[in-house]
Amino acid sequence: MPTATTALLVLDLVGTFAFALNGALTALRATRLDVVGIVTLGMITALGGGTIRDVLLDSLPPATFVDWRYLAVAAAGGLIAFSSGPHLERVNGAINVLDAVGLGLFAVTGALKALDLGFGPAQAVIVGAITAVGGGTLRDVLIRRVPSVLTSGLYAIPALVAATVVAVADAAGARGPVVTVGAAALCFVIRMVGVRYDVDAPFPKGAPGPQDG
Amino acid sequence: MPTATTALLVLDLVGTFAFALNGALTALRATRLDVVGIVTLGMITALGGGTIRDVLLDSLPPATFVDWRYLAVAAAGGLIAFSSGPHLERVNGAINVLDAVGLGLFAVTGALKALDLGFGPAQAVIVGAITAVGGGTLRDVLIRRVPSVLTSGLYAIPALVAATVVAVADAAGARGPVVTVGAAALCFVIRMVGVRYDVDAPFPKGAPGPQDG
Amino acid sequence: MPTATTALLVLDLVGTFAFALNGALTALRATRLDVVGIVTLGMITALGGGTIRDVLLDSLPPATFVDWRYLAVAAAGGLIAFSSGPHLERVNGAINVLDAVGLGLFAVTGALKALDLGFGPAQAVIVGAITAVGGGTLRDVLIRRVPSVLTSGLYAIPALVAATVVAVADAAGARGPVVTVGAAALCFVIRMVGVRYDVDAPFPKGAPGPQDG
Repeated sequence: MPTATTALLVLDLVGTFAFALNGALTALRATRLDVVGIVTLGMITALGGGTIRDVLLDSLPPATFVDWRYLAVAAAGGLIAFSSGPHLERVNGAINVLDAVGLGLFAVTGALKALDLGFGPAQAVIVGAITAVGGGTLRDVLIRRVPSVLTSGLYAIPALVAATVVAVADAAGARGPVVTVGAAALCFVIRMVGVRYDVDAPFPKGAPGPQDG
Repeated sequence: MPTATTALLVLDLVGTFAFALNGALTALRATRLDVVGIVTLGMITALGGGTIRDVLLDSLPPATFVDWRYLAVAAAGGLIAFSSGPHLERVNGAINVLDAVGLGLFAVTGALKALDLGFGPAQAVIVGAITAVGGGTLRDVLIRRVPSVLTSGLYAIPALVAATVVAVADAAGARGPVVTVGAAALCFVIRMVGVRYDVDAPFPKGAPGPQDG
Repeated sequence: MPTATTALLVLDLVGTFAFALNGALTALRATRLDVVGIVTLGMITALGGGTIRDVLLDSLPPATFVDWRYLAVAAAGGLIAFSSGPHLERVNGAINVLDAVGLGLFAVTGALKALDLGFGPAQAVIVGAITAVGGGTLRDVLIRRVPSVLTSGLYAIPALVAATVVAVADAAGARGPVVTVGAAALCFVIRMVGVRYDVDAPFPKGAPGPQDG
């Protein structure tokens, strides 16, 4: 296996782990859950976006379902959240950083998969964003929250930006590690700036402010 | 492209636009959302039913996901709801009419697609109804409402009637524009009568009335 | 059709009926629904798990959607719940028993289908559990409850145990009616013991007790 592919796989597994850990911790804070619920919600956060992607791209069975490494890493993230949830609050900053890494990677790999399968740029952008935010959306629905991605913060927008960069570069004939890493890094930076300065996406005119949510 | 097909495509795009606009406005009224949330919920309302249909019929990737015109029209409906939501309350009646047009069209085209792919009449009726009401159901789940289609009003029933007419006519050997338009028109009329006179589907005996919901 | 297969089909239809009846009654107790909502939620409870299974296994269209007998039995369960819901409270114990039968059967047949299609043991266990609990989870999301399977009681765990027994036996070269019936019976017994003695799955340390939910 060439080194570049191995590096991408390792990064993808890191993102999957971060999504599962962060997803399970978010669920844990929001509602009372037993061990089955916590691990399930961690796995759904980590693997749900890729599953919706593969349904839309007619690429079933879902890639992350077939590959046991994704299942194992996602389950491990959920189990760690279950067994040491309260202790992890101290490393919350680090988990947020890893989650932003996962966000960029998932958006980029989702868009690339759509393009590789012959879909157009609009489809690649949509699928990239869904890969990145779909799992967290499913989790929020299951724990009965309006998905945070729909209401506030910069979460979907950096994913949309990264997927758009990939789609535009592809249309211009540019592909390869520079575009992949650059787009994922751009998503990461926008996301972290949003977290740091508490930036929100635009609200409709006349709507109440975010404090109201 | 023959004229009849073009007419059907135009009607289908009109229905898609109406579903996106109405879906985004409904979401906007129910909860606080940013621009990403409003456009996403409009698109899900417009395209979600057809996506579930295509999963059940093993006809992936979903037709409305592949065709950029559906994506563009659905996104436009969501963006218009975002940018001029409050002003649209004045034309609410017109939006309801277009939505009822979409309901009939989606039920009929969903049932026809099932029959074309060789499914039986029961499957055609179910899929026709899901095509018509599935997107709104997904939206309601995401904004944390019990889907209105499950609780009150005549929304699923006209869709079921239209899909049943198509399936029965097909079993009797009748197909073509008369059946298609007739079934969609029947759905439209039942829906508008339901809106006008506030008719509900039957409740179980002893259940509290609709005001209680 | 050989007798063993017929017996399995009959049991599977009994499980489907019990899931639809129990699912519709649960929905009826939790929120106000009209006839469309009750029958729909009964059918989703009965058929939803198998549908998710068939998406994950790339075995579309879903088997229970194609076979009208499953649709008819599920619709009948929902209609009976609608027409005689309050009277059924007296036979609630019997319905719970049938539901536990369905839980074991769905977990076992789901796991077997994954193995038959060449998936590994981890996938078989996950898919078996999803087949058993997926429909009830979808129902709970639609009626706006945090899925009970995620929060308390022994529901997912007996399904996971049964699917694991099937996967381990298969890896050890053992297949056939003894394993199938044994695994389903084990699931049934664990489930009924859980109901009888009100056993919960483990909660995270420091979490509030179940009364708090």
